[in-house]
Amino acid sequence: MSIANANTSPTMSGVSTTVDNTSTPADRARWVANPPDPPGICRDLIDWLRQTMFPDPTKLFPLKNKTGTAVLGRVLKGVFPILCWGQSYNLGKFKNDVLAGLTLASLCIPQSIGYANLAKLDPQYGLYTSIVPPLVYAILGSSREIAIGPVAIISMLLPTMIQKIQDPAADPFAYRNLVFTTTFFAGIFQAAFGLFRLGFMVDFLSQAAIVGFMGGAAIVIGLQQLKGLLGITHFTNKTDIISVMEAVFASFHHLNNDQWNPLNFIIGSSFLSFILITKLLGKKYKKVFWLPAMAPLVSVILSTLLVFLTRADEHGVKIVKRVPPGLNPISTQNIQIHTPHISQILNAALIVAVVALTEAIAVGRSLASMKGYNIDGNKEMVALGFMNLAGSLTSCYTATGSLSRSAVNFSAGCETPVSNVVMAVTVMISLKMFTKLLYFTPNAILASIILSALPGLVDIHQAYNIWKIDKLDFLACLAAFFGVLFLSVEFGLLLSLVISFAKIIVTSIKPGTEILGKIPGTDTFCDIHQYPMALNTPGVLIVRVKSGLLCFANANFVKDRILRFISSQEASGKGITQFLVIDLSNLMNIDTSGIASLEELHKNLATSGIEMAIANPKWQVIHKLKVSNFVAKLKGRVFLSVGEAVDACLSAKMGAAI
Amino acid sequence: MSIANANTSPTMSGVSTTVDNTSTPADRARWVANPPDPPGICRDLIDWLRQTMFPDPTKLFPLKNKTGTAVLGRVLKGVFPILCWGQSYNLGKFKNDVLAGLTLASLCIPQSIGYANLAKLDPQYGLYTSIVPPLVYAILGSSREIAIGPVAIISMLLPTMIQKIQDPAADPFAYRNLVFTTTFFAGIFQAAFGLFRLGFMVDFLSQAAIVGFMGGAAIVIGLQQLKGLLGITHFTNKTDIISVMEAVFASFHHLNNDQWNPLNFIIGSSFLSFILITKLLGKKYKKVFWLPAMAPLVSVILSTLLVFLTRADEHGVKIVKRVPPGLNPISTQNIQIHTPHISQILNAALIVAVVALTEAIAVGRSLASMKGYNIDGNKEMVALGFMNLAGSLTSCYTATGSLSRSAVNFSAGCETPVSNVVMAVTVMISLKMFTKLLYFTPNAILASIILSALPGLVDIHQAYNIWKIDKLDFLACLAAFFGVLFLSVEFGLLLSLVISFAKIIVTSIKPGTEILGKIPGTDTFCDIHQYPMALNTPGVLIVRVKSGLLCFANANFVKDRILRFISSQEASGKGITQFLVIDLSNLMNIDTSGIASLEELHKNLATSGIEMAIANPKWQVIHKLKVSNFVAKLKGRVFLSVGEAVDACLSAKMGAAI
Repeated sequence: MSIANANTSPTMSGVSTTVDNTSTPADRARWVANPPDPPGICRDLIDWLRQTMFPDPTKLFPLKNKTGTAVLGRVLKGVFPILCWGQSYNLGKFKNDVLAGLTLASLCIPQSIGYANLAKLDPQYGLYTSIVPPLVYAILGSSREIAIGPVAIISMLLPTMIQKIQDPAADPFAYRNLVFTTTFFAGIFQAAFGLFRLGFMVDFLSQAAIVGFMGGAAIVIGLQQLKGLLGITHFTNKTDIISVMEAVFASFHHLNNDQWNPLNFIIGSSFLSFILITKLLGKKYKKVFWLPAMAPLVSVILSTLLVFLTRADEHGVKIVKRVPPGLNPISTQNIQIHTPHISQILNAALIVAVVALTEAIAVGRSLASMKGYNIDGNKEMVALGFMNLAGSLTSCYTATGSLSRSAVNFSAGCETPVSNVVMAVTVMISLKMFTKLLYFTPNAILASIILSALPGLVDIHQAYNIWKIDKLDFLACLAAFFGVLFLSVEFGLLLSLVISFAKIIVTSIKPGTEILGKIPGTDTFCDIHQYPMALNTPGVLIVRVKSGLLCFANANFVKDRILRFISSQEASGKGITQFLVIDLSNLMNIDTSGIASLEELHKNLATSGIEMAIANPKWQVIHKLKVSNFVAKLKGRVFLSVGEAVDACLSAKMGAAI
Repeated sequence: MSIANANTSPTMSGVSTTVDNTSTPADRARWVANPPDPPGICRDLIDWLRQTMFPDPTKLFPLKNKTGTAVLGRVLKGVFPILCWGQSYNLGKFKNDVLAGLTLASLCIPQSIGYANLAKLDPQYGLYTSIVPPLVYAILGSSREIAIGPVAIISMLLPTMIQKIQDPAADPFAYRNLVFTTTFFAGIFQAAFGLFRLGFMVDFLSQAAIVGFMGGAAIVIGLQQLKGLLGITHFTNKTDIISVMEAVFASFHHLNNDQWNPLNFIIGSSFLSFILITKLLGKKYKKVFWLPAMAPLVSVILSTLLVFLTRADEHGVKIVKRVPPGLNPISTQNIQIHTPHISQILNAALIVAVVALTEAIAVGRSLASMKGYNIDGNKEMVALGFMNLAGSLTSCYTATGSLSRSAVNFSAGCETPVSNVVMAVTVMISLKMFTKLLYFTPNAILASIILSALPGLVDIHQAYNIWKIDKLDFLACLAAFFGVLFLSVEFGLLLSLVISFAKIIVTSIKPGTEILGKIPGTDTFCDIHQYPMALNTPGVLIVRVKSGLLCFANANFVKDRILRFISSQEASGKGITQFLVIDLSNLMNIDTSGIASLEELHKNLATSGIEMAIANPKWQVIHKLKVSNFVAKLKGRVFLSVGEAVDACLSAKMGAAI
């Protein structure tokens, strides 16, 4: 082996200040073959637990030299973020928060009524949900821009799952109790996820799956609005596009003794156009951001006035009717822990909890990164969990961070969660004083308010981006989209989860090898297809496994492929291979099947007189190869880098020639 | 950036003969950032199909300059391996094959009767299965040592699945027909796997899972033998250890009007001891390899004689009774394609097909590698498939390569599949002439023959090896073992499949990062924990993602971990990070979530004044980073190697200092 390599390479002179900056190839071979023992599975687990349980050492380290009070203060600040931002709160910030909170309330009130309608609950429950959860979140939550309240996806998810247990039309009270119970357990799940630091579970839905799911859900929600927009009484309980279209078709053709009413459609679609136009204006001229935020409230007021003046409700226009005045009633007695359907309820609660967390944390993260701060997923889950727990005991259904309203809150210039408090107080005042005014509000206007919020959920730009970057990811996106659209919401969610993980498996075990060549002017060896200028070394074949794992599912294929490549090279007269260097640098891990196939490869090559060397094994890999005695079989042909392995091969070749 | 690196490093002089052996860092930066487009998903798929469909280019390439006859000859030789080894067949080889074939037959005849009993079929069906499949395999198969016939695992699997459809005690003919139908479809599945080149599917059971499954199955089979060994009439149809123990307990306590008979037990256990002692002798003295192979036949003859002379059958010893003489009857009319249970049959056939292939190919491969040749999994599947198809039409149940008999065949010195032919002919002669002699054979002796073959299936040595190498793999092994033992055979198989793939997911997405340092005397950067002698570069933090994939499931964690590490370093006074170099060399692929988190990391670092550089991105990764515009955001800080990235950082630092 050449020892020229042992000199400090000229490139790196001056990089390190230590004097012990030299080593011989023999040193390095020793270093490769005798690493310290890698951490075992228990050690790994403990490390991981420590990392997830104590997420921010920077906030814990400085505690060392502090007094007890300071420590308590720090812990309290950790639990109640309000203590952090509360210290520097001032009148200027309060003014901004009030402005943002009022804007938010004007959008929130009509949306809450609409979403309650979507969730098959009476309108007041939507308003209740805009009071308690935002107040709790303001104390516990760490995001400053998120707007808490009922959202479209959850309002659609809840009835699709709960009406299988209890039909809301048959017994609205029993249905409502089950919704509260689901919210209660969803809150418990969310808080538990946060307390047990399972925040990483939110990451188990890939971005592609979320984009597809949201898009599909938006269309499903839109289709559900046809009921209100067309004034149909008998509508399907299913959410898939085919059932909905059949129901609409039936009402057009006067089947089921039901008929659509064109007046509803005219009111709904004209106000929908109004809201959409204000949205376009708001997008174009950033200064009038309040215009689209106010439009829904204006529409509600105008359409209610219109119906009241013309008494259109007597001509078939469906209206909201009585909304009972007063604040959230206590609902502890409505939580039904001992219901016989508890397993279905728990199942629904888990799905609702995860979807709610996914939306809230995605919204929170993206707004936080715009303002340059980080939000802690686990802390956020605890806040959302306690907020829903409190909500379920005060007649609220599941709330989360709303995509559309958070964006409005952000552009309205909110500074802290106080904007949520202002919004909640405004909703409280409305509930106390103005519920009578909602009597003549047409249902069609609620449908058009929901419809106007949907385009924000369909992220075509992102879907195009996914298509451009990764075709397999796009497939997952499409599957989630069509799964939600044609089958059911839960199935779409499950499908996207399965596809996301199937993609990981396929990508991880996709067996492949690449031939390496030397990059001119360096000691680096790279894939000759990625770097066409890379140079071959005659007689030495350098192969890298193109996978992070050499395991039962791909080891045999890789072995066969290497053997086949060698024999095809000989057969096609491209030269005889004397040395095979396998670059193991890609392998994070190897299993018993992987080791067995390396051993078979070694045995097979030995019968053809080809010598095999390995280069750059990672920690776990070299450890396992040593334990299984494969390193001993290689007789020292284990090298730190491909360059050293090639050098050793070439000097062995020259030695043989002499 | 230093350009010293642009000179050819002294190590590599003489490696390549090209003169164009230099490059500047600028060249290399251009090469990294502008690779050719990587193959798309379609291209990948086509490549993979070509690789699997035309498995051996060495056998196809030389065709180019050959005549039509030569081409035909080659193709025929590919389809019928008999034409290959037949050319050089001679009397010496034939002598060896006859010797091996006769040894094999002496072991095969008692085992076949016992396995037929295990499969809840009449004894002759076991013998039939030792005739047609070996003959078909001798023509089509490529393994020279494998011994074809009924095996223990399949004989146990078939009844556990088929007796759910049809109880063999209630209607043995209907049950038998379903067994033939299952064998028919198993043959079709096997041949189809081979023809469509799905040989890789056999690799989907990890070695650990197979070891556990085989061990569990051996114990389950052993437990089933308690019926014959104790002479119990009413036995359970379930295979799990608890049900079997309950049945045995019931018979001991005279429940169910049933009673065990000690005579059966005495005969069975004494001959079992005899067979096991000969096994031990055979293992110790290699020259008497024929002793354990003959022992079962000797036991059958002696015990039959004993029962005949003492008329022990009148004292409660259960005997085989009439075995109809004559060769395999045709069973085409017994294949029930139009049965209402076809979906259950297809399901059973698939499981049987996969398990049979797994055993045969594992046996074939290990014996082939001992003699230094390779067997082609796909060709082997076609051979096994056609052999079972032919078998199902001639009253055979599913056959495959037997682990124990193949080992005997190998040590008896077989040369070609002719030993299988000799065995089949011997079985044929026995069926024609000696079936009457089997009348008084006690059932207990069949149980002890099966029991004596089981220790070979429990591979404690390999299980210990797995424990030593990989604790997670050992868990999969244990799960398969206990799944088979306590639940059911199918469930154990499914469990091991699920665990094997779950392990792949966990290992692939396990989020982690490692800090790199420079190995003294080289330009190589490695994990500072694996190489404690590695040197830090002040001000530059070099991080490598410890996973083959940066995807939705781990990207956020990796990002948080890097940010946390930087801030904890600063907090603990270990120096301020000015540059972050991320070594992407481990990443085979990245998805949209992974890119998004890299972008967030970049944004976050920029606000703290830390510059970020990436080194050694793989083909797919750099392509996606370019498409998503991330490379543009990095403003050229993309390097071929960590060394070059560090050089660039240091010269930027010096530039700033001046």
